[in-house]
Amino acid sequence: MPRYKLVLEYDGRPFVGWQRQANGLAVQQVVEEGFYQFCGIMPTIHAAGRTDAGVHAKGQVIHVDLEKSFETHRIREALNYHMRPHPVVCLSAEEVGPDFHARFSALSRAYLYRILNRAAPPAIEKGLVWHVPQALDVDKMHQAAQAFVGTHDFTSFRASQCQASSPLKSLEIFTVKNAEHEVHFYVKARSFLHHQVRNMVGTLVLVGKGKWMIDDVGFALAAKSRAAAGPTAPAEGLYFLEARYA
Amino acid sequence: MPRYKLVLEYDGRPFVGWQRQANGLAVQQVVEEGFYQFCGIMPTIHAAGRTDAGVHAKGQVIHVDLEKSFETHRIREALNYHMRPHPVVCLSAEEVGPDFHARFSALSRAYLYRILNRAAPPAIEKGLVWHVPQALDVDKMHQAAQAFVGTHDFTSFRASQCQASSPLKSLEIFTVKNAEHEVHFYVKARSFLHHQVRNMVGTLVLVGKGKWMIDDVGFALAAKSRAAAGPTAPAEGLYFLEARYA
Repeated sequence: MPRYKLVLEYDGRPFVGWQRQANGLAVQQVVEEGFYQFCGIMPTIHAAGRTDAGVHAKGQVIHVDLEKSFETHRIREALNYHMRPHPVVCLSAEEVGPDFHARFSALSRAYLYRILNRAAPPAIEKGLVWHVPQALDVDKMHQAAQAFVGTHDFTSFRASQCQASSPLKSLEIFTVKNAEHEVHFYVKARSFLHHQVRNMVGTLVLVGKGKWMIDDVGFALAAKSRAAAGPTAPAEGLYFLEARYA
Repeated sequence: MPRYKLVLEYDGRPFVGWQRQANGLAVQQVVEEGFYQFCGIMPTIHAAGRTDAGVHAKGQVIHVDLEKSFETHRIREALNYHMRPHPVVCLSAEEVGPDFHARFSALSRAYLYRILNRAAPPAIEKGLVWHVPQALDVDKMHQAAQAFVGTHDFTSFRASQCQASSPLKSLEIFTVKNAEHEVHFYVKARSFLHHQVRNMVGTLVLVGKGKWMIDDVGFALAAKSRAAAGPTAPAEGLYFLEARYA
């Protein structure tokens, strides 16, 4: 059975998240049913990141085993045809070896978080950015974010329902910068805890608004208690950007 | 009666265009009804650019006469409150003199046209970009676009229903450049003919695909016949960016 690696883009707004659930349509279901239309089997799909409801992807990576070989551009085109009109598209497909696993082989994952930082709410990008009307100090947020870089116990930034066996995670990069009227948070790590990115962003915004000092972020990390950190930033600003492999 | 200048952002997807029409909801109507909710009068609103159905704005400029004075941040906030849930927002408001006219005082207008240039259609920005899957030569399109700069008879790039008294227009700037997987066309002039930007973009794409030579754009301009130029690019990629005043 040939195995294929696919890169997907999707708009998280209409979905209950990546993973199949009883209460609505999941991205996974759209992709699996797209394959069913295309080749008559309903394969199980594995993803690099199981994004939550409302979270978007510009470069989600999945793998799938098919019963026979296809030219990779045909897989991309057929899947895009059959997934319509759902806002999920396949950007590229390639054949990989049997040892490749979209989730377990990933060496790093990167997320982007977008804040629209102006008085007026978004007209064009509603549901695609978090609207924060108050002035944000981007330099201070970037400085504060450096407390997250390295290996730490991220208990303070972990959702109560997180199923990871350990709260230890290693962050490679965390940058915060202006982009016209937006603030962009870029974060890269081998893997993340549930809600970790959104909890880090929600906490950094307290620094950006001047409610917290830069050092308070390190104190929140050291406290190892969810109550010590800031609120969870909404799903709408979060994008799964990419996963890298060997 | 105090006169106010407002800058608006809107998503063109649900609208029949800027101007009120019998067949659906216009942006103008949303703004006028927002003012009615806010201050009990239904003023007539004048816009710098009367955008077509499906065309977006990041910086449409309007003016309105109100029966009494308001603090400008109150106008912005009240209008944004009352225009919900329509995808139209007021970015800023300022008081101007009685001689200011959003349409007739404008010294220049600028438009952006966005093409998504990749094999896969857009998942996140459907209706916000024109999807062109074929490879485009951006340098050649930029070179060809320079034929439009200066004062010319734009008969070849004018919609049949255009009501302007003269086909002569003066373009100040026309740039074409790559932006990740997109191609951005930026054009600035005192004013434009109906469909002029979309007709110029549709023609330049023929150059980008290699179907036309760079010089063919100048020949199309010299022909002074709509049939000599390329097709009209779709509304979905077009953004009214800004209008400038003295």
